[in-house]
Amino acid sequence: MNTLYFITGNKGKVHEATEKFRPLGINIRQKNLGYPEIQTDTLEDVAAYGVTHIQKQGIDHGFILEDAGIFIDGLQGFPGVYSSYVYHTIGLQGILDLLANTLKCTAVFRSVFAYAEPKGDPHFFIGECLGKILKEEKGSQGFGYDPIFIPDGSDRTFAQMDTSEKNQFSHRGKSLEKLYNFLNEKKFMKN
Amino acid sequence: MNTLYFITGNKGKVHEATEKFRPLGINIRQKNLGYPEIQTDTLEDVAAYGVTHIQKQGIDHGFILEDAGIFIDGLQGFPGVYSSYVYHTIGLQGILDLLANTLKCTAVFRSVFAYAEPKGDPHFFIGECLGKILKEEKGSQGFGYDPIFIPDGSDRTFAQMDTSEKNQFSHRGKSLEKLYNFLNEKKFMKN
Repeated sequence: MNTLYFITGNKGKVHEATEKFRPLGINIRQKNLGYPEIQTDTLEDVAAYGVTHIQKQGIDHGFILEDAGIFIDGLQGFPGVYSSYVYHTIGLQGILDLLANTLKCTAVFRSVFAYAEPKGDPHFFIGECLGKILKEEKGSQGFGYDPIFIPDGSDRTFAQMDTSEKNQFSHRGKSLEKLYNFLNEKKFMKN
Repeated sequence: MNTLYFITGNKGKVHEATEKFRPLGINIRQKNLGYPEIQTDTLEDVAAYGVTHIQKQGIDHGFILEDAGIFIDGLQGFPGVYSSYVYHTIGLQGILDLLANTLKCTAVFRSVFAYAEPKGDPHFFIGECLGKILKEEKGSQGFGYDPIFIPDGSDRTFAQMDTSEKNQFSHRGKSLEKLYNFLNEKKFMKN
């Protein structure tokens, strides 16, 4: 079995990737190494900087890392790459206050996986989920912005869905799928 | 004359430091090298990471860099180290919207200067200006959050003050003063 490190502190993400990649004979191992997340406009830049940092420290296997965020059109992409920080400061109520006078409540959830070998440039896998921000919180499942986000094609928030339903829509489900296809192709190229 | 690099893209800050340190026989030279600003809660962490980055690239003189932000108590310190990003996305109106239902409008402007030699740990110089956020914009001078911030001891916003009046209150005036005292003492130790 091939080992692939997942650089993250989030056990939930590790579990999700483990299940996803098991059919490929890939053994996901969590490495909570931590890396500096830079202030920039795009998730790709955050991920790329993280990859370079990990490679500079030295690592003995291929690895993946992920960054995600929600970009609200009416707020010029805010909170974007700072979604986690914003959630922990002004919170969902803050977002709702900011949008109180805004008609344009469309938003996109983005997830970026980076895959890299110990040396060399990373590959990026981007998943997006278009949707809109509600004027109030609904549902109690999931985490973060889930209670105020309704994906296109549904009339319920992420927080009103169970995991398997959410995964059909979700940005992370899509980026993970792209990474899966890449790793699957890579396997056949090796054989 | 001793040369001290100021790592910044901001000519206004360079001018301010040049005037301030001339009496010490220190020649400030702007170096717009750029450095990654990390996502973290404190300005000191941002500055420290910048210093390490610059030192790793290699530099032939002592240098300074500065980071600043406004921390609003009623918003759990938001926008803090992300003040510039937040200003360029949700803007002053966004801040006012967030505070519309908040009674606690106290805030603090913080500035942190880091001074470092080509190798070794940096010294930090912190300046703070306590004040409050207005419910509307007032004044047209200065930049950034100046039109909505009234420093304690005044009844006017930073944007209603000329530079010399603002400097009596300002966070950057205070951190610069601490750095001045440090460099002055250092000079006497060398002689």
